[in-house]
Amino acid sequence: MWVYLNDRFVQKEHARVSVFDHGFLYGDGVYETLRVYGGRILLWERHLARLRRSCELIGLDFPIPDEAWLPILGELLVRNKLQNAGLRLTISRGEGELGIDPRLCARPTVVVMAKPVVEYTDQQREQGRTLHLASIRRNPEFAQSPQIKAISFLNNILAKQEAVRVGADDALMLNMEGELTECTTSNIFFVKNQRLHTPAVECGILKGITRDIVMEIAQGQDVSVEEGRYMMEGLLQADECFITNTGIEIMPVRKIGDCQIGQGKRGLLTRALATAFNTNVDRYLGPCLTPSNG
Amino acid sequence: MWVYLNDRFVQKEHARVSVFDHGFLYGDGVYETLRVYGGRILLWERHLARLRRSCELIGLDFPIPDEAWLPILGELLVRNKLQNAGLRLTISRGEGELGIDPRLCARPTVVVMAKPVVEYTDQQREQGRTLHLASIRRNPEFAQSPQIKAISFLNNILAKQEAVRVGADDALMLNMEGELTECTTSNIFFVKNQRLHTPAVECGILKGITRDIVMEIAQGQDVSVEEGRYMMEGLLQADECFITNTGIEIMPVRKIGDCQIGQGKRGLLTRALATAFNTNVDRYLGPCLTPSNG
Repeated sequence: MWVYLNDRFVQKEHARVSVFDHGFLYGDGVYETLRVYGGRILLWERHLARLRRSCELIGLDFPIPDEAWLPILGELLVRNKLQNAGLRLTISRGEGELGIDPRLCARPTVVVMAKPVVEYTDQQREQGRTLHLASIRRNPEFAQSPQIKAISFLNNILAKQEAVRVGADDALMLNMEGELTECTTSNIFFVKNQRLHTPAVECGILKGITRDIVMEIAQGQDVSVEEGRYMMEGLLQADECFITNTGIEIMPVRKIGDCQIGQGKRGLLTRALATAFNTNVDRYLGPCLTPSNG
Repeated sequence: MWVYLNDRFVQKEHARVSVFDHGFLYGDGVYETLRVYGGRILLWERHLARLRRSCELIGLDFPIPDEAWLPILGELLVRNKLQNAGLRLTISRGEGELGIDPRLCARPTVVVMAKPVVEYTDQQREQGRTLHLASIRRNPEFAQSPQIKAISFLNNILAKQEAVRVGADDALMLNMEGELTECTTSNIFFVKNQRLHTPAVECGILKGITRDIVMEIAQGQDVSVEEGRYMMEGLLQADECFITNTGIEIMPVRKIGDCQIGQGKRGLLTRALATAFNTNVDRYLGPCLTPSNG
């Protein structure tokens, strides 16, 4: 497996960074996770803009010009013989002496990894996931903005561990006011009376790119979508619930804690949106980056 | 320069971890910073206990038995020909596939680094530091406990950057209630009417080991010490102010934002405590680990 590291492609076992990299010492860096369908990246421009924004928010110079990214991502896919893939782009502060002053690091570290897509069976998509309500609350804006897709990810890791301990698939996080935010690596939606609801960005979430697509697709299907501030009570009384990210796309949630959601399986609107996602995903894809890899 | 990595000593340029190390991918790990005086570690048992506690709080198995640490630290000091040093111990979740489930990582990564102590001149100690009041607030307990000395350090990094932008030496952070907590890598004390004040642990601080020593030494000098909840107003009207950590020991603060503290130089009690610290530090040191290095 090939990994892109700084300025070259290296085999996974050689993809190593200094222990003095501030990504490793201090979680000082940002990342993006992309999805590739048939060699074509889903909404590259939005991911690139978000990566740039994350860098700005932590005061990190953007290390690679916009136009230089796609050739790198394309070559990584070709080298790894992947047409359908997940890509993780990481930019850390880079290597430097001990200390958190950003001026200690001369040059950011750039890493791009590719992995095959996890394909879910119909049965897995029908069953969906279970969530645990985490006692850990989502990072508030005033301490570490959820809009920064940061490698300082302990807040979400602590929530995930709570889920692991009770045998749930993932953790749902509230903000300090007790409002719904998101799961540890996905946004959440629920359906009540044929209306789609999802926590507003102002609740303290990462504005997911799959979340955007789902809202656009729903509106295209004349499903009304409401972004708002919701409490657990509303969610637990929902008819349907699902979570979204670039990897799982639209994944139903059948149970939250001890409470079954709706019929405890994929709901009708969730299924319709997943079908529409599959039908419409082409519209969101860029040019094919892997012509020699077909 | 030698670094200890997992199970061996390697030269700094070979001290590298996989880009799949969850320390690098997700800031998933903890650390300690120790101080060594003449080959003797300051309060090793307290640091070890805190490192263990940090591991417990993030659900990470402690990878090295208690009694195995000192031989490693001693050999690192000898190899680096250091008698007076700072040591950084890092334990990350280790290498694993992408994803934040801790079960993806089989074995934690352990890194120990040593660096020469920064020696401050009398003038630097007399002048002290300037602080900037950060707009970023300290991580609240409910999101990421400040009691975890975590490598997910972005909260503090964001505050530090605010200080760098305005030319201050460090940033002072408040909690969400607006109470004083700590600086980005140090605890804070202030003196008012010959009484020493420092934010209580409950304000959301890391319980510093130098902070403990300072309180013990002050009490030994019949200086009354109060741990409490303080607002900026109280601090700005203080007669003296100083910050503490294992590296800087007791360092005066002469200015916070535009406000001069006391006489704008090291105060009398601050100086007395620093003198007492130097006189008493022996009591806090363990056995010499570098017999062949004298």
